[in-house]
Amino acid sequence: MGIVVVGAGLAGLSAARRLVGAGQDVVVLEARERVGGRLEGGEIAGHPIELGGTWIGEGHTAMRALVDELGLATFRTWNDAGSLLVELAGRRSLLAPRKGAVPRLNPVALADLAQGMARFDRLARSVDPGRPWSHPRSGRLDGQTFETWVRRNLRTPSGRAYFRVATEAVFSADTTDISLLHALFYAVSNGDLETLLAVDRGAQQDRVVGGAALVAERLAEGLDVRRGRPVDLVAQDASRVAVRTRDGETFSAEHVVVAVPPTLAGRLRYDPPLPAWRDQLTQRVPAGAVIKTFAAYPTPFWRDRGLNGQVASDVGPVKVTFDVSPPGGEVGVLLGFVEGGEARRWQRLDADERRSSVLACFERYLGPEAAAPTAYLEKDWTAEEFTRGCYGAFFAPGVWTGYGPVLREPVGRVHWAGAEHAVEWNGYMEGAVRSGLVTADRILAAT
Amino acid sequence: MGIVVVGAGLAGLSAARRLVGAGQDVVVLEARERVGGRLEGGEIAGHPIELGGTWIGEGHTAMRALVDELGLATFRTWNDAGSLLVELAGRRSLLAPRKGAVPRLNPVALADLAQGMARFDRLARSVDPGRPWSHPRSGRLDGQTFETWVRRNLRTPSGRAYFRVATEAVFSADTTDISLLHALFYAVSNGDLETLLAVDRGAQQDRVVGGAALVAERLAEGLDVRRGRPVDLVAQDASRVAVRTRDGETFSAEHVVVAVPPTLAGRLRYDPPLPAWRDQLTQRVPAGAVIKTFAAYPTPFWRDRGLNGQVASDVGPVKVTFDVSPPGGEVGVLLGFVEGGEARRWQRLDADERRSSVLACFERYLGPEAAAPTAYLEKDWTAEEFTRGCYGAFFAPGVWTGYGPVLREPVGRVHWAGAEHAVEWNGYMEGAVRSGLVTADRILAAT
Repeated sequence: MGIVVVGAGLAGLSAARRLVGAGQDVVVLEARERVGGRLEGGEIAGHPIELGGTWIGEGHTAMRALVDELGLATFRTWNDAGSLLVELAGRRSLLAPRKGAVPRLNPVALADLAQGMARFDRLARSVDPGRPWSHPRSGRLDGQTFETWVRRNLRTPSGRAYFRVATEAVFSADTTDISLLHALFYAVSNGDLETLLAVDRGAQQDRVVGGAALVAERLAEGLDVRRGRPVDLVAQDASRVAVRTRDGETFSAEHVVVAVPPTLAGRLRYDPPLPAWRDQLTQRVPAGAVIKTFAAYPTPFWRDRGLNGQVASDVGPVKVTFDVSPPGGEVGVLLGFVEGGEARRWQRLDADERRSSVLACFERYLGPEAAAPTAYLEKDWTAEEFTRGCYGAFFAPGVWTGYGPVLREPVGRVHWAGAEHAVEWNGYMEGAVRSGLVTADRILAAT
Repeated sequence: MGIVVVGAGLAGLSAARRLVGAGQDVVVLEARERVGGRLEGGEIAGHPIELGGTWIGEGHTAMRALVDELGLATFRTWNDAGSLLVELAGRRSLLAPRKGAVPRLNPVALADLAQGMARFDRLARSVDPGRPWSHPRSGRLDGQTFETWVRRNLRTPSGRAYFRVATEAVFSADTTDISLLHALFYAVSNGDLETLLAVDRGAQQDRVVGGAALVAERLAEGLDVRRGRPVDLVAQDASRVAVRTRDGETFSAEHVVVAVPPTLAGRLRYDPPLPAWRDQLTQRVPAGAVIKTFAAYPTPFWRDRGLNGQVASDVGPVKVTFDVSPPGGEVGVLLGFVEGGEARRWQRLDADERRSSVLACFERYLGPEAAAPTAYLEKDWTAEEFTRGCYGAFFAPGVWTGYGPVLREPVGRVHWAGAEHAVEWNGYMEGAVRSGLVTADRILAAT
């Protein structure tokens, strides 16, 4: 056998598919009984939903190509007939859900927010997403938290609140946690801040009919995927690499692609042990904290009320919502995100408190009908043994400049893949696929 | 059997000793063939040296008590007959090595440094080391890097350089990496910044005759320590906990004390998996990066030259040195630290480049004799599979406020210990011992 892939998420499966297409023998070892990694199909009120990764953005060409090749279809995220509700610093506004729309704030706050966004995007465009550490002022940009930048560059409570909510929504971490350089890198890797936040022409534009996990499931169909096989040891010498599963079976190969989140890649045992720089890197890129909550209703009633189901609020625990009803709108399904610090506090509540705190948010945002869903469910990605946080890893201050150059560097016969390794569309399904393809191509070029 | 301790460092051994003293059956499982964890004995030119933890500070009462009980002795770190060399912002000065001494800088820089240190210590005294997250401005203090504070509060290049070198020396991390709240917590946990940096009446005051690792070795003598037994699974139910070693043996107990560095505690497998908050905590407290380098000379020649062998410089790779000659001064042994970003760059050089870059520093600091040692050695703690960085873990921005409250919280029958868990003398041998004793007492109170 030629190559072992550890992890049957989009990155691992995409790498495996390309390698098989090039004539390689490939075995994919997956810890769970299902494929998909951070993609998982669920169901509410008889309709499919995404418990994990959901959206395909406008420029996500690799995902679009995959969807086509696998015989799947996409549909537009609901974004019509209604306004986005924004609640910032105690003030509510409704706005048209088009890209470029800004909340209706007082003129001072609006000017502040506009200059802040322009300044952020200008700075982001100066960062090379393939080499953030090479920026002429990288030490300065990576030596401060995004919170420090927000405090220094936004003057109004609303302007600051907007950046903080946006950060939670995009990074599932707080402005205090991530480095400014990481925020800039991530924005430019994904176009710009607006693209990250937008539905139409943005990162949340489309969904897969039947659920995004179908992409992973269809990808796996043509591959030799061994489910329920957690890996516990990756041993290499000059000529081979041996990958051992917890149940004691060993798979010998020329190369291995470790396609699991960085924090989990760092927990595998390696023989010889990984070099210091690689181990210290994975100690420093924790996964964000996010819980997805869903409530189903007989109809997407908010649509009749001039609301499109999208909310951005600075009052938690749910600060961001989306309408994730099935394409035909047969039932209404609302998705609420609980992220960062909110997730930490919320996950320690008991089940009743968690549910009632979420529904209280939904009710405040969309009206009294939201208090009584026909079904409710939640998915805490930080509690998943084989993920340990979503959407992805973030870089704290000092990490891009200290360890960025070794992020994508193989260690002998051990190669890395995953959404965190992507230069473009980092952190998204698109980034995962591209990262898998890049890693596969590098291996093919070397064999 | 009553209790299993994972890890035979000072924390684990101290916990085990107290538990045994209270009549409990205790087995200590140690991954390595030696005890001591971050303490390790070495030898250069026929004399013992500490490859890891070295010093006992003035207020380190638990360590002093242990040294006495174990029949060991201490001696003073060499701090006489000569000056400390300080090299900051291109300017050299010599100063008396007493606590409170400050480098001879130009008057503006001196005033700047003095106000910066006073301001830092005043702020540090407002932090409760047992509950840093409870500070009234904890969000603000933890939302910025220490570097941000240094830039805002020090105005001169020398003043900033001093804080950066001090941070590397104390945290084996850069000002860009750690949160301001962590810097403040650590200072107050260890007295104040001057105590952390000082020899006489400070954290580097005394050494153990024969080497600090003797403390761990003597502690282990009275205990049931199983060496070479890495743990791979900690499984608990309502009534027992089972700790399995890699070779498949299972030790059943009422409680387990996991006394390994946080980043390694997070890599063990737990059944049921650890709750989200605990796992996300250990993802966020990476170990610092430090390499210890040693050179031996026929005599401690610097002492005849008005130098005491202590250097603090802002030019790497070695920025901090100490005279660690044996008590009688029979030979001269110089210790040089390579830390933080310097360690990352340096460890990727080949062996000859590493050695020559260190000796070039020693020569620049102490004179031409330093270029030709009779022996040279280095110890890279980040490359150690069962440590993965020293001196200890640091807290990046957002981590104390987000996860501090769960740091010392047991998970069912699983308890935590180690220098990172100490309220007082956090990060030092003293903190490790105290943490072990506190954890043992908590278990005894519960059984």
